[in-house]
Amino acid sequence: MKKVVALAGGVGGAKLARGLARVLPNENLSLIVNTGDDFDHFGLHICPDLDTVMYNLAGNFNELTGWGRKDETWTCFSELEKMNSETWFRLGDRDLATHLERNRLLLSGKSLTEVTAMLCKENHIANDIFPMTDDFVPTIITTEEYGDIPFQEYFVKYHFEPKMLDYHYQDIKNAKLNPQTRHALKECDLVIFCPSNPWLSIFPILAVTEISEIIGKKTCVAVSPIVGKQAIKGPAAKIFTEKGTVPSAKEVARLYRGIIKGFVLDQQNSDESEEINGWGIISLVTDTIMTDDLSKERLAREVFEFASKL
Amino acid sequence: MKKVVALAGGVGGAKLARGLARVLPNENLSLIVNTGDDFDHFGLHICPDLDTVMYNLAGNFNELTGWGRKDETWTCFSELEKMNSETWFRLGDRDLATHLERNRLLLSGKSLTEVTAMLCKENHIANDIFPMTDDFVPTIITTEEYGDIPFQEYFVKYHFEPKMLDYHYQDIKNAKLNPQTRHALKECDLVIFCPSNPWLSIFPILAVTEISEIIGKKTCVAVSPIVGKQAIKGPAAKIFTEKGTVPSAKEVARLYRGIIKGFVLDQQNSDESEEINGWGIISLVTDTIMTDDLSKERLAREVFEFASKL
Repeated sequence: MKKVVALAGGVGGAKLARGLARVLPNENLSLIVNTGDDFDHFGLHICPDLDTVMYNLAGNFNELTGWGRKDETWTCFSELEKMNSETWFRLGDRDLATHLERNRLLLSGKSLTEVTAMLCKENHIANDIFPMTDDFVPTIITTEEYGDIPFQEYFVKYHFEPKMLDYHYQDIKNAKLNPQTRHALKECDLVIFCPSNPWLSIFPILAVTEISEIIGKKTCVAVSPIVGKQAIKGPAAKIFTEKGTVPSAKEVARLYRGIIKGFVLDQQNSDESEEINGWGIISLVTDTIMTDDLSKERLAREVFEFASKL
Repeated sequence: MKKVVALAGGVGGAKLARGLARVLPNENLSLIVNTGDDFDHFGLHICPDLDTVMYNLAGNFNELTGWGRKDETWTCFSELEKMNSETWFRLGDRDLATHLERNRLLLSGKSLTEVTAMLCKENHIANDIFPMTDDFVPTIITTEEYGDIPFQEYFVKYHFEPKMLDYHYQDIKNAKLNPQTRHALKECDLVIFCPSNPWLSIFPILAVTEISEIIGKKTCVAVSPIVGKQAIKGPAAKIFTEKGTVPSAKEVARLYRGIIKGFVLDQQNSDESEEINGWGIISLVTDTIMTDDLSKERLAREVFEFASKL
């Protein structure tokens, strides 16, 4: 059976990651997660995409909020709200435990890769989850209203309302790959790009030089985060529009042209598959909407079987 | 009416501070609090004595635990316990809000004095509470078992069980006085040493050079933390014993000889007052045990009236 590395960031990516984790043997699936959305707040190092993937795999993700832990309480942040503190990025009391422990371990000198492995162990996760790099490489969004702001301000504080004029991945040229991540990547047969935002979740991962070098030799398959003309969640469709492009699955495939061998798009976009095939990308049309574990598993199985035959 | 600065650290000190705050006009009482017990944990800057005084004055101190906030919940630290994290120093969910906000404000460049003022304002405290310095001057305890350890490890992690061979106030020679604290100290008529541990709460404050210089010109009165042969709380009696001295109020007075003009001791130690008077220290014997607001107010009033007449 082929070994898979899945690239993920955000809720859609984490959903497929959970599907894959439930379908594939543990040793055959590793995840590389975007850390371009990491930031420091209250002196805590916050890794939203890593935690979203981790909590999804652990089965304790908060589906209601779309971030953080389920069965959450809010005592601490309710107090902070009374203080008129900076509460635009909220951390539940349970989620805070993850953050305090991550902070403690990072301050003790461990790498983010090591810390993530320890947190995953605490969460009884059998798959390896790797941050794309141990280096701090924040994604910076250039906006009209606020100038250059870190991703989470754009995404959470300003609800991705500002127009994204430009973006860059700070310090990404020097970002190193952790040896464990390198090993998993070199060892795999297939790389699956989960249905995550191309510019804000997948391209930051590919911008780590060594990742794109290794991935260049692998069979890569991407799953479209655009369904119909919309993103299920997040600013992907809005960014297409701001670039003067009508959002569609085929526009996602165009972004990945030259990198991917296969592309999975939703049945709502079935009429786009012919054009995609014309670019030498083999496409699979299916139902890509994941509403529960069954649909996550079904899509994961379809994507894996499709990719295995390429 | 005379203006008072009270020096405090720990629970006994905070109790008298609360009594004084309830008895004196707000503008006539400022507090200078020990920060030798400050430490960094989980990347949070923790100021136990400052918070104990602040929560006491705010009326939201946790009398049951003897630290932290009342009406507390423990969701975050329960999770950390499950993770086998370092939970010997526990922070409740509400208390965490104070710590996150302090961290945020300190990281934004504000001094500990400024941050404390802001937290006091959030807690509707009308008195000025000053950290003894904005510099980080940890009290280090030399123990037989663990060598040199920061105060909170000695006090909380090891329950002050190790023998204290020695102690020092790290970097205290360079500790500067905040201009606001200097102003309050210069302006006051009376300095009251609350019933706090001499070595671990009061001497660290006096070790700030400029504080002892200004205090040298003021009328100082100390309240004994030893009642009978015991400390109400903490290691004061144990430290006397380790030094080969029988714990007593008069031994506390002896430590402050040359600094104080008046000394307040408990009725259980009344037979010691004559010897204290013999050293040129005027003593007041009264009931120093504070169990509720009424007894805090009564003692505060007695101490203030006694000091005012010196």
